[in-house]
Amino acid sequence: MPISTREIQLASRPHGEPTQDNFALAEVALPDPQPGEIAVRNLAMSVDPYMRGRMNDAPSYAPPWQLGEAARGGAIGEVTASQSPDVAVGSLVLHDRGWREHAVLPASEAFVVPRRDGLSPTLYLGALGMPGRTAYVGLFRIAAFQPGDTVFVSAAAGAVGSMVGQLAKLSGAARVIGSAGSQDKIDFLLNDLGFDAAFNYHDGPAARLLAQAAPDGIDVYFDNVGGEQLEAAIGAMKLHGRIAVCGQISGYNASSPQPGPRNLGLFVSRRLAMKGFLVFEHDDLADEFTQQVSGWLTEGKIKTRETVVDGLDQAVDAFIGMLRGANTGKMIITL
Amino acid sequence: MPISTREIQLASRPHGEPTQDNFALAEVALPDPQPGEIAVRNLAMSVDPYMRGRMNDAPSYAPPWQLGEAARGGAIGEVTASQSPDVAVGSLVLHDRGWREHAVLPASEAFVVPRRDGLSPTLYLGALGMPGRTAYVGLFRIAAFQPGDTVFVSAAAGAVGSMVGQLAKLSGAARVIGSAGSQDKIDFLLNDLGFDAAFNYHDGPAARLLAQAAPDGIDVYFDNVGGEQLEAAIGAMKLHGRIAVCGQISGYNASSPQPGPRNLGLFVSRRLAMKGFLVFEHDDLADEFTQQVSGWLTEGKIKTRETVVDGLDQAVDAFIGMLRGANTGKMIITL
Repeated sequence: MPISTREIQLASRPHGEPTQDNFALAEVALPDPQPGEIAVRNLAMSVDPYMRGRMNDAPSYAPPWQLGEAARGGAIGEVTASQSPDVAVGSLVLHDRGWREHAVLPASEAFVVPRRDGLSPTLYLGALGMPGRTAYVGLFRIAAFQPGDTVFVSAAAGAVGSMVGQLAKLSGAARVIGSAGSQDKIDFLLNDLGFDAAFNYHDGPAARLLAQAAPDGIDVYFDNVGGEQLEAAIGAMKLHGRIAVCGQISGYNASSPQPGPRNLGLFVSRRLAMKGFLVFEHDDLADEFTQQVSGWLTEGKIKTRETVVDGLDQAVDAFIGMLRGANTGKMIITL
Repeated sequence: MPISTREIQLASRPHGEPTQDNFALAEVALPDPQPGEIAVRNLAMSVDPYMRGRMNDAPSYAPPWQLGEAARGGAIGEVTASQSPDVAVGSLVLHDRGWREHAVLPASEAFVVPRRDGLSPTLYLGALGMPGRTAYVGLFRIAAFQPGDTVFVSAAAGAVGSMVGQLAKLSGAARVIGSAGSQDKIDFLLNDLGFDAAFNYHDGPAARLLAQAAPDGIDVYFDNVGGEQLEAAIGAMKLHGRIAVCGQISGYNASSPQPGPRNLGLFVSRRLAMKGFLVFEHDDLADEFTQQVSGWLTEGKIKTRETVVDGLDQAVDAFIGMLRGANTGKMIITL
């Protein structure tokens, strides 16, 4: 155990897009674990779009980060010391004390996860973790996916979107369409993940691009971005279409309200449904998800790509880049 | 049986708000009923907001009215001749050949309804008919109303809205709030229908008026108008709030798309759900509805007000006025 460790603290709250100045890399003393606690050496931490909301001092589902304190977020690590009978030294644990190289936390707030042959532990931050479970809950429960559905997902090359498309294909979707922001991502969707169609949302009005990619309309839209693509999706909806609202990253950095879709009248004429959700309210699906997805991963039926950035001192740049779309697949910071 | 009768035909399609010129009052020959048909003397006809959509030549749930042909819509009448063993002369029937004084139609397209002691047959066009059933389906099935909910309904003094509020109160709502466009309507909501709070949407920003009327937020919004009030309702939603989208009358006469709500980001943070619906897809609730609501009407627990206009030659003005909000309660044309 080192006696000091590095962590990233919130230095100030952003107005609009976050900058390096909103964060500070600090060297802090690492306490010894007290009874009931464990010490963890973090192997990797997650940067996720929802973290932008935690930078604001506003009540939300995830508590705001506090000024002058280390940021939080998903991390995977190895237990180096334990004062708990429930967690053995050497265990692999998933927990929420990311943004730091070492963490001391109550054993009750860490989840021991198995080491799986051939599968990287970092998958617990992506396909096998919160992003994968978010895709699973949103597609199957919130959007009530049925075999034969045509599914559109935005931010499709991201950690959640890439899982949504693959889960839909593996479950009998008639057609899966994804949108992303670069040719490299479009190639990834079409060539690696087996999407039926994909478009770069920079190439023109989303409504036109989606109409070309889904000429017969869509049954399900998995919304990661909001804004123009949400309006396009509503316009492309078939009768009884369903929208799972997972995130609206297009507005996360906005400092004034963004215009909403102008075609909500279609909700009545086409009997549409739109639901927002948070994965942590659907823990009852966690076992089903893990069993299903770990199987598909082991069989090679689900492909993953990680954008890996090494070192805590790179984490802030990586986070800001992810909000701009710099990642393909799950963005991971190795520590 | 007269040999001729009067009907209102669609003369041209409107751009924006309809005018008298879009309609023509015509004298037409009345055919004798053929085998399987009945002849009906209409007692009253309905004018409803959804009819605005039927004036457009665009595919929708209700087929467009055809140029040079009589308009259609709900009507209640007495059977004057019958060539069907299923419908006796003298029966009271509900059917879709409104906008005319007499109608000849297949018996299979008419619904024989009972004459109920003390209840006006025109209730079959309002509280006991399509508007009442729309309120019932939207509140209980689409918005999944639960006792203890706080409910907000727009166009609350209209045929549907006045039922939504009363059904919610009778079913254990914690608080019912309505909006309408005149002081007379507000008085009606508060003094006659038992709403807990009501506001005139002309009195200021809807978000402020709603926050005053529902300081603790709302669980259910029954949307009849869309636009600014929808945005206000989303902003006032509590966690897991539900929106039933019944209509969006604020946009019906618009000739360009109206801006959408700017606060859809709340769908995730508050896990909101919004669903559009059409009553005719929920016929399985019709018997339950009729039994429940006819009982409450007979017991005097549901109050109704009709805005009655007499004569087919007044129907167009009445329809145009209803789109502007001239009615309190159900608007009926007696014939």
